[in-house]
Amino acid sequence: MKKTSFISRRTTHAIRVGYVDTDKAQVVHHSAYFRFLEAARVEFWRSGGLDYRKFEEDTGLGLPVVEAKQRYRKAARFDDLLTIETWVSEASRASIWVDAKISRGAETIHESSIRLACISFAEQALRKIPDAVLAASLEKGWDV
Amino acid sequence: MKKTSFISRRTTHAIRVGYVDTDKAQVVHHSAYFRFLEAARVEFWRSGGLDYRKFEEDTGLGLPVVEAKQRYRKAARFDDLLTIETWVSEASRASIWVDAKISRGAETIHESSIRLACISFAEQALRKIPDAVLAASLEKGWDV
Amino acid sequence: MKKTSFISRRTTHAIRVGYVDTDKAQVVHHSAYFRFLEAARVEFWRSGGLDYRKFEEDTGLGLPVVEAKQRYRKAARFDDLLTIETWVSEASRASIWVDAKISRGAETIHESSIRLACISFAEQALRKIPDAVLAASLEKGWDV
Amino acid sequence: MKKTSFISRRTTHAIRVGYVDTDKAQVVHHSAYFRFLEAARVEFWRSGGLDYRKFEEDTGLGLPVVEAKQRYRKAARFDDLLTIETWVSEASRASIWVDAKISRGAETIHESSIRLACISFAEQALRKIPDAVLAASLEKGWDV
Repeated sequence: MKKTSFISRRTTHAIRVGYVDTDKAQVVHHSAYFRFLEAARVEFWRSGGLDYRKFEEDTGLGLPVVEAKQRYRKAARFDDLLTIETWVSEASRASIWVDAKISRGAETIHESSIRLACISFAEQALRKIPDAVLAASLEKGWDV
Repeated sequence: MKKTSFISRRTTHAIRVGYVDTDKAQVVHHSAYFRFLEAARVEFWRSGGLDYRKFEEDTGLGLPVVEAKQRYRKAARFDDLLTIETWVSEASRASIWVDAKISRGAETIHESSIRLACISFAEQALRKIPDAVLAASLEKGWDV
Repeated sequence: MKKTSFISRRTTHAIRVGYVDTDKAQVVHHSAYFRFLEAARVEFWRSGGLDYRKFEEDTGLGLPVVEAKQRYRKAARFDDLLTIETWVSEASRASIWVDAKISRGAETIHESSIRLACISFAEQALRKIPDAVLAASLEKGWDV
Repeated sequence: MKKTSFISRRTTHAIRVGYVDTDKAQVVHHSAYFRFLEAARVEFWRSGGLDYRKFEEDTGLGLPVVEAKQRYRKAARFDDLLTIETWVSEASRASIWVDAKISRGAETIHESSIRLACISFAEQALRKIPDAVLAASLEKGWDV
């Protein structure tokens, strides 16, 4: 599947930075972004019709992070209201790349690409990315 | 069971404070102590003969935190080397209180009492605190 | 100042449980509640007219946690939508107790009392709880 | 400066996985690795003669993460004893790449490359990577 063969949905999700997210440099610690991105990803799917908790319960499948690339453009600070734009940049039967841009107003704070695979919890083995995940991610899919 | 009917084991465990544990006030965030205490508790039991991971696997039981009291005496800082003294202050068939004192050299940083109950994961129901947990916690037990 | 000499404001704040908040027992880890409570506390003050970030910047003061008591009543789970009710249960010039009850629908999940003191960051010394904090916390104050 | 113009030091650091590091998939959450890597990095520098806390205090400089790439090869689990091998893969006056491989016995669990820049805290502006950082990182340096 080529990058150009689909159009991803795009959603935005707002996050308020907590005191706990900051470190002694008085900015958001680099590890906190994974939390923000994960919350945005769950809402990305929810708004596309996929309840991720129910998905795990019903199918016995999960979507673990297998690769992550992050660029920290500007520091975020306590109580900043950040906006996370989320979309799928690439998808195949083997894995799905979920990209995001985190902004504070007009400033880009952080950019990321996170690759998810699909596993069966019971068998601890890889599975194909389910159609339900792709359907919830894409505006227009494969056959377009 | 009365407080005075047993003598607890006492162990010390060292923790190095990470950058991630600090917040914008440039001290350790109050939530980080749970992490330190949990690590010390696992080592407390290991040194008493209880491998907590194996305990969960073998018995299908767990020891969730049901109550916690913490006093923050002094601020800890990045890269501090802290010592955690751990002991059982009270134990019954229903729950076990694990106390700890965190120090930096001669200074007391933090004091806590954490009550653990025992649950069966499969049934999500309370169970008695197993003998193996008590045996690993106490120097001299009930019948002394 | 006596407990009965004021009426606290009460606010509710909603939190969505993240995957990252859970642990291998498949419930929310006991340390995650501090994050939820902190977010609720910041919003409690914001809705009372105190922008806590601005307060720290303008005054050079902070409100560190010096004591915490928590009761874990029921397990919370991934994607649960929790409601945090926050109020001040006790206040003096030396410290302020912020209590909270976390619920999932009609079920009480967690109850807590957190005592905050006031420090000057520059001097690392205790200060009186500022009037602005009390004014933002109380519905009706001292002189009522 | 070319990749081939220096030989990095290499250190190993051991980490015990905590319960708090796991998630409901019963493996280590992807965000926890940043914590492990950060601890290993601080020890990498300490063993090379750089006390990172003292470095920040003495110089007013810090080394924030500006880019991170991570590959999650295998799941790690509660109580696993992981070994983190740390080295510098690339260095210039503008930034330094710190790579790491996390293993459990013979198995590779996680691989990462993290790019650090240097900032002045007071001016919130970029600075050159100090010689002290390079000296602590490299076995043999520039002029070799």
